Formats: sequence, C-alpha cells, structure tokens
Amino acid sequence: MDDYYFEDFAVGETFVTGSESVSEEQIIRFAKEWDPQPFHTDVEAASRHELGGLFASGLHTLGLTFRLFIEMRVLAASNVAGAGLDNLRWSRPVRPGDTLHVEIETTEVRPSRSRSDRGYVAMHYVTKNQHGEPVLEFDLVHICRRRPTALAEAGE
Amino acid sequence: MDDYYFEDFAVGETFVTGSESVSEEQIIRFAKEWDPQPFHTDVEAASRHELGGLFASGLHTLGLTFRLFIEMRVLAASNVAGAGLDNLRWSRPVRPGDTLHVEIETTEVRPSRSRSDRGYVAMHYVTKNQHGEPVLEFDLVHICRRRPTALAEAGE
Repeated sequence: MDDYYFEDFAVGETFVTGSESVSEEQIIRFAKEWDPQPFHTDVEAASRHELGGLFASGLHTLGLTFRLFIEMRVLAASNVAGAGLDNLRWSRPVRPGDTLHVEIETTEVRPSRSRSDRGYVAMHYVTKNQHGEPVLEFDLVHICRRRPTALAEAGE
Repeated sequence: MDDYYFEDFAVGETFVTGSESVSEEQIIRFAKEWDPQPFHTDVEAASRHELGGLFASGLHTLGLTFRLFIEMRVLAASNVAGAGLDNLRWSRPVRPGDTLHVEIETTEVRPSRSRSDRGYVAMHYVTKNQHGEPVLEFDLVHICRRRPTALAEAGE
C-alpha cells in the first residue's frame, strides 16, 4: 500500500491492521519510561487499584495503535505529518496478555486551501482487544501529499 | 504535592514542570519502536522532508509531557485514570537539542454525578521549547479521588 496519495483516500474506506499482544513486562517497561504511575508499573500496587490489576498506560496503547497502522504502509508515501488529534477516549483497560488490532476508517478528505500539493485526511481509529471490545478511539487528521505525477500534469 | 485530592484542584491554577532536553538518539530510538516513519528515524531521509530535518514523533513529545507532569506528583494521590484527551495540536516540530517543559492549567473541576468519591479535573497542557514556543497543546480530563478523610466525615 505504498502507493496511496491524497487522491487515493476515500471516505468510508476501512483499514484493518495486524494484531499484537501486550505483555506485563512491556506494560511496566513502557510506563516506567513515559507514564510512571503505580497502577502501570507495579503489579502489587495495581492489585489494590479499583480497576483490579495492572493495565497499560493509555500512551502505550496509543503507541501500539500508531505502529500497527504505520506498518500497513497506507501512509508511507504521502504522510507529511499529523495535524491534530481529537475525541480520544480510553474505553477499557488493556491488560497483560491482551491482543490488540486497529480498525481505521477514512472520515473526511479535504484539499488544502493554501497548498495545492496536499490535503487533509481525517481518520477515525478504533483499537480493539481480542474480544472485539474497543479499548481506545480517536480521530486523527493526517496531512497527505498528492501524487507527484498528478502535480506535473497540472503544470505545478 | 502528593496531597492533592479532587477538592484541592482549582480552576485557573497553573503548574509548571521541570524541563528536559531531547537528543537525536532518543528521537530515533522512540520512533523506531512506536512511530517508524523515515522523518523520525533516519537523519538522511529527514533532511529531504519539507520540515527540514529530523523531528520527534508527536507521540514522543506527548510521552515527555506526561512524564514531566507525573514527576511533579500533583496527580500522585488522586488520579484514577485519564478519561479522555481532546484538541491535541502539534504546533511546531521538536528538534534534536530542544529543551521542553510543560505548563498545565486546571480549566474545569466537576464532581461525578454517579460516584460521590471522585470528580473530573480538566487540564489544558501546553508543552513549550526553550524559546517559549508551544510545540504541543491538548486538553486532558483526569478522574480524581476525593480525600479519604473527607469521605469518612461525610459518613461514606
């Protein structure tokens, strides 16, 4: 899917990533570096937390989500950068042993008003566990380039 | 600041974290694991990117932001979990050598309607570089516990 450019994205199209399991060791290692709160880093402390045991940092789940979609290479050719992220909800805790995948739907495709070589592609991400339950949802707007040949033909 | 509970948060109060520098090695290492795009992982490829060189994954900047605030321990006693995140914008690229800190303002304090032992604390985060320029902004709602003694006095 390395050949996706701005004009190839279509509202309603859905991408489903591969899946990945999360281990207790990964949860603790990630959280110690980026989100050092006891319910993410300490099994004993987490057992006293009302969510009933260790769960992954929300940022860890977000990182897995980013990587699983990037590995599909839908964005490989065209992505300039992420513009912004909205409506993020951590719907359920992610536990050691959970296996996650991501379903991404293109929700808006809008040419840039100031730059003819690009546009905005809004996507709704839903990360789900092995039971099909959402654990994370958000909307992310990508800035995506048009296909270079299309620009050449347009005389740019 | 370990003694902050729900009832201690006040709208308009601002917290300023310590600062931390970001190295090229850290940018590449983080991105290889969580956001493997060439403009975050490859100095040579990034030099051809329109942003003119390597810049940190937005998720890396978000991780630094989380950790710098957690290290202040404002949330240490009361934070149950993050409920959601909105209006996130990556305003400027973060470059190797940049030094970041975070300014966090409490924007809303709202008791839970269903649980008398907690409430919602909304905070606006702005992460700035060494020039005082925002590189990241977002709103995050924390679920925070009330002080245990206050609950005891209320007969709960």
